[in-house]
Amino acid sequence: MGLKFRPVDSSFYELFAQSARHIVVGAGLLAEMLADGADREAVASRMRDAEHAADETTHAIIKQVNQTFVTPFDREDIYALASGLDDIMDMMDEAVDLILLYEPSVLPSELSNQVEVIQRCAELTAEAMPRLKSMSDLSEYWIEINRLENQGDKSFRRILASLFSGKYQPMDVLKLKDIVTSLEGAIDCFEKIANTVEQIAVKES
Amino acid sequence: MGLKFRPVDSSFYELFAQSARHIVVGAGLLAEMLADGADREAVASRMRDAEHAADETTHAIIKQVNQTFVTPFDREDIYALASGLDDIMDMMDEAVDLILLYEPSVLPSELSNQVEVIQRCAELTAEAMPRLKSMSDLSEYWIEINRLENQGDKSFRRILASLFSGKYQPMDVLKLKDIVTSLEGAIDCFEKIANTVEQIAVKES
Amino acid sequence: MGLKFRPVDSSFYELFAQSARHIVVGAGLLAEMLADGADREAVASRMRDAEHAADETTHAIIKQVNQTFVTPFDREDIYALASGLDDIMDMMDEAVDLILLYEPSVLPSELSNQVEVIQRCAELTAEAMPRLKSMSDLSEYWIEINRLENQGDKSFRRILASLFSGKYQPMDVLKLKDIVTSLEGAIDCFEKIANTVEQIAVKES
Repeated sequence: MGLKFRPVDSSFYELFAQSARHIVVGAGLLAEMLADGADREAVASRMRDAEHAADETTHAIIKQVNQTFVTPFDREDIYALASGLDDIMDMMDEAVDLILLYEPSVLPSELSNQVEVIQRCAELTAEAMPRLKSMSDLSEYWIEINRLENQGDKSFRRILASLFSGKYQPMDVLKLKDIVTSLEGAIDCFEKIANTVEQIAVKES
Repeated sequence: MGLKFRPVDSSFYELFAQSARHIVVGAGLLAEMLADGADREAVASRMRDAEHAADETTHAIIKQVNQTFVTPFDREDIYALASGLDDIMDMMDEAVDLILLYEPSVLPSELSNQVEVIQRCAELTAEAMPRLKSMSDLSEYWIEINRLENQGDKSFRRILASLFSGKYQPMDVLKLKDIVTSLEGAIDCFEKIANTVEQIAVKES
Repeated sequence: MGLKFRPVDSSFYELFAQSARHIVVGAGLLAEMLADGADREAVASRMRDAEHAADETTHAIIKQVNQTFVTPFDREDIYALASGLDDIMDMMDEAVDLILLYEPSVLPSELSNQVEVIQRCAELTAEAMPRLKSMSDLSEYWIEINRLENQGDKSFRRILASLFSGKYQPMDVLKLKDIVTSLEGAIDCFEKIANTVEQIAVKES
């Protein structure tokens, strides 16, 4: 048994880190999608590939937890982390998809701020995942993610207010509201994950 | 005790099968609702009845799991299956409701494709539930559901693109977007259930 | 140990009661927000304070459950109650926020009916939480919440029908739909909580 435990443990941390790295890639593609003159078809198809790769990592985690007798921390927390990371990828993929499908006539620059927040959250999460093994220096991570989520939320509300201020056509409002809502959803998921990590740390302490 | 287990077990499988049969009925009513010259008031009220019947089955499952000491598989998986099946019914009911409430001036034919996918998913799920007892021949089921969900997703995105292409009035876009989103939500739930069944199978294997 | 149990137990009930009291406050602020001539900026900022206070109570419950060896009832039920109560606050906060952000040119009177339902549900929930300790007289609570949710649902559907009847501009429909949907979401959460309480009662019985 002793032989079995370590590899299982480390594989969990490695899979979480892998999952977070997929998100860093996805966040980069999201930024590309918003750039002027982007080949949206091409970026969207690379986003789909990144999303499929992320799915495989998620399935590997679920399979791992279901086949492992002793998990490094509570099963429900592992599920929460795995599905939370998966949700972020889905929402970034959705945002990219909506930009491709809706072909909005205008993309307000505020959207780029949201995407910058997403990219920063992705980096912080990718750096934090490997530290789950030692459970060390994680508080800075969840504090900073919560700060970024508050900032993102304020700018999300500013964007909504400007969308509904009357300077946009109803169709553009419809399109842009869906897009910014996907971005906001991704940011919220980063906070959920940070909260789960905080919970795990509390249990371990 | 030996006497107690079997009936309890089989009652779970019977209740899941019952729940899935309610969904087959609901999917049929959804198809009726989209048919030309349908008496929408009448179909919607039959849908409400079907939804109430499904609720009772869900409550029976929850009551069963809460009162049962030994469950055929993990409680969280039983909850996931029960609430997932319930969610499908709610989303089909919502779609029927929205068609009644919004009175869309037009129902694009693509909606029928989505409903056909839902009907096929419902049949496959109803056929699979009784097989939970033996855990046999379930992989074809979840593979086919995943295939159907991908197909449904592609056509959902095509429908959104056409809704936002400019050929519809904003009010019609608002109405139809809600309706197709409920249909898409139902299809996604079928996939969630298939994934839960796959997880259960992995644990049992 | 015996010494440890009681205080822990009662602290859970106290925290749930506290959480529900925050919701009563929030529901009152929601009503103020809809009142003619309300200082929306001021009400919204008081709502944010109430929401932060509620968050702290939620975190206290989560921390408590994570640090407690013997919980008064199943951990997943405690999580469900805590996060459900938190969701209600978030949705009321969202509704207040949207009224502030969207500045709808009109607020149909039907919205006040929804808010009255929310206020009644909040009071009933606040009265019920302390009774979790004795598990007595809870059935009237969940039956009445279910009745109120049905009533709220009917009026929600009437509001949607009127929003889409053509007498509103697309932009107003977009704004009001989001607002009434947040209210409906809050009412649904009250029902979820009532259902969770019913489940707990079944397990205890």
